[in-house]
Amino acid sequence: MNSQEIRGKIDKIDSQMADLFCQRMELAAQIAKYKKENNLPIFNSGREREVLSHMVDLCGEELEGYIRVLYSTMFDVSRSYQHSLTAQETELTRRIDQSLADAADRFPTKAVVACQGVEGAYSQLACEKLFKTPSIVYFHHFDDVFHAVAKGLCQYGILPIENSSAGSVTAVYDLMKEYNFHIVRGIRLRVSHCLLARPGVKMEQIREVVSHEQALNQCSKLLASLPNVKITVCENTAAAARLVAESGRDDIAALSSRGCAGLYGLKVLKDRVQNSDSNYTRFICISNKPEIYPGADKISLMATLPHQPGSLYRLITRFASLELNLTKLESRPIPGSDFEFRFYFDLEGWVGDPAVKALLGSLQEEMDEFVFLGNYSEVL
Amino acid sequence: MNSQEIRGKIDKIDSQMADLFCQRMELAAQIAKYKKENNLPIFNSGREREVLSHMVDLCGEELEGYIRVLYSTMFDVSRSYQHSLTAQETELTRRIDQSLADAADRFPTKAVVACQGVEGAYSQLACEKLFKTPSIVYFHHFDDVFHAVAKGLCQYGILPIENSSAGSVTAVYDLMKEYNFHIVRGIRLRVSHCLLARPGVKMEQIREVVSHEQALNQCSKLLASLPNVKITVCENTAAAARLVAESGRDDIAALSSRGCAGLYGLKVLKDRVQNSDSNYTRFICISNKPEIYPGADKISLMATLPHQPGSLYRLITRFASLELNLTKLESRPIPGSDFEFRFYFDLEGWVGDPAVKALLGSLQEEMDEFVFLGNYSEVL
Repeated sequence: MNSQEIRGKIDKIDSQMADLFCQRMELAAQIAKYKKENNLPIFNSGREREVLSHMVDLCGEELEGYIRVLYSTMFDVSRSYQHSLTAQETELTRRIDQSLADAADRFPTKAVVACQGVEGAYSQLACEKLFKTPSIVYFHHFDDVFHAVAKGLCQYGILPIENSSAGSVTAVYDLMKEYNFHIVRGIRLRVSHCLLARPGVKMEQIREVVSHEQALNQCSKLLASLPNVKITVCENTAAAARLVAESGRDDIAALSSRGCAGLYGLKVLKDRVQNSDSNYTRFICISNKPEIYPGADKISLMATLPHQPGSLYRLITRFASLELNLTKLESRPIPGSDFEFRFYFDLEGWVGDPAVKALLGSLQEEMDEFVFLGNYSEVL
Repeated sequence: MNSQEIRGKIDKIDSQMADLFCQRMELAAQIAKYKKENNLPIFNSGREREVLSHMVDLCGEELEGYIRVLYSTMFDVSRSYQHSLTAQETELTRRIDQSLADAADRFPTKAVVACQGVEGAYSQLACEKLFKTPSIVYFHHFDDVFHAVAKGLCQYGILPIENSSAGSVTAVYDLMKEYNFHIVRGIRLRVSHCLLARPGVKMEQIREVVSHEQALNQCSKLLASLPNVKITVCENTAAAARLVAESGRDDIAALSSRGCAGLYGLKVLKDRVQNSDSNYTRFICISNKPEIYPGADKISLMATLPHQPGSLYRLITRFASLELNLTKLESRPIPGSDFEFRFYFDLEGWVGDPAVKALLGSLQEEMDEFVFLGNYSEVL
């Protein structure tokens, strides 16, 4: 057989496959209907195992791994289809419906907002980009921000959730789950550092540079170009600026934001001194009640998966069958467990889409830990 | 039809599917043979698109998303099977074969090793667990460690690659790629902090605690229990211990390792003061030549994927078809690009397995950026 003939045979097989697939999906739809009428769950792991083991027997040892993958996918697409048809109500789908019904037309421009950090920190910039006229209350710890919103002292909170050099801020994810809070807005802030010193100080006088560790790393090229300069790590970039202002010294500079120059009476010695112009930090705006505004196009999720071949694969098959794009995926081992991982996902999608809502609802029913963190839009 | 009858029909369809699948894989094997004889690449995206669009036509709009997912998986398992049969040599498979042939029976116990950090830092502990009798040279920056190994000044380098609170150290991944270095060993170090002070100092005298930011975060519960204590961030935990030793003060303590107590003449005020006992840092041992030792069971990879629905899904289908377990998966946006993501993967596997080697070889041929970082074992 030449390759043309082989391809012809494959085409014939594919047509038969398409026919069988359509028949199978039609039968799956009937099963789903039956289950809904009798109030039975869609997922039946015993039945799937049985079918899989039968398929492996039929295909033989050489093809075992391949048929397992193909048929796991068959189960997943079949289940997604069943869920989209039956759209069973779950605790999560009800919660989503409620949020959509309650949603205001637009995000507020004015609010009392809890920020982690100090005046002049990047979270202030984030807050001022999200709200036109916020009243900001500053807190030292992430936990305090949650507490302030939980107690009703502040309406919203602003927290960093991810940055381009260190990834996800797991402590914030953990608190989101602990407090059962929601992400209602995101903002991606390009981080641009300046070298600040006291008025009148010249570049060649500088013998010490102080800043937050991450800012120091992000400006390593500038620092390497300054000979014999001592590097001092401090708590955050705003504290660095204050330290320089209060030092009374002419040989010290801070890596900080432009805003801190005005705030602490310093001058910009050099602007945009970071190695790469694409450092950014993603901040989230959190609320203690779900709020989903029109135009929300990003879904954040957190899930725990067992340390088993294929468990992540199975989950993202479900997203793939709805053609949802994953824009973030990060795994972290769970403290105290060597066998489980926690995953952080961001998807492009809108929970008002019935198929998306049904998928989230069913995943929460099936999985031990599945947290819907919010559906929101992100400001750039 | 009752559910029993529907299931019976599905079983019949599945048996026919199994039969067609086996025929299709047999034809794929013939295609692979033909391609190998004629030196043609396995991957043919045009042909896949054509088949997919035909399948979508046959199945109709309602099932479009589902058949797309199922048939993408069909292509991926078919391609994996073809690669396992033809095992085409590529630059990477040749490199792996060479490393396996050159491999010594065991990892050395003695070497000159470049460490990032200072004496007493956790990287020293990692180094001493990996080598019985290392000669350690300390460097301040990651880059210096690579440079020292590249110049032959040191045989190996020890660097942190991931930790449980902040995830992957992307700077180290970037340097691995830049220098084209290899991971030859891993070590997962549980991080246990002590509160250290000068001899004779009592807990109730402490008014200031100094340490690296991450250690301060990891011991936040202890810090919250100390009233009116000032928190000071410094460069690393070893520097914190030195600062306390040199301060001459009786009201300051450092969060540092037990080893630093001896090193700087301090006493342990309190042991294991971290919030959770499962903080860890993963260190890697790097070399400028590939070295794969017997028993290597972990594969580290780095890949760039386009921002397209399903691109990650397609890649991990390939791993799933070989039943390779993913133990780590992390995505980061690529600086300067809003449309591409870099992924860091760890898999459980051994490149001496022909199917694994063939898969890595073909992925490197197909993808724009696919870096095989090493196959090694990790010490706990």
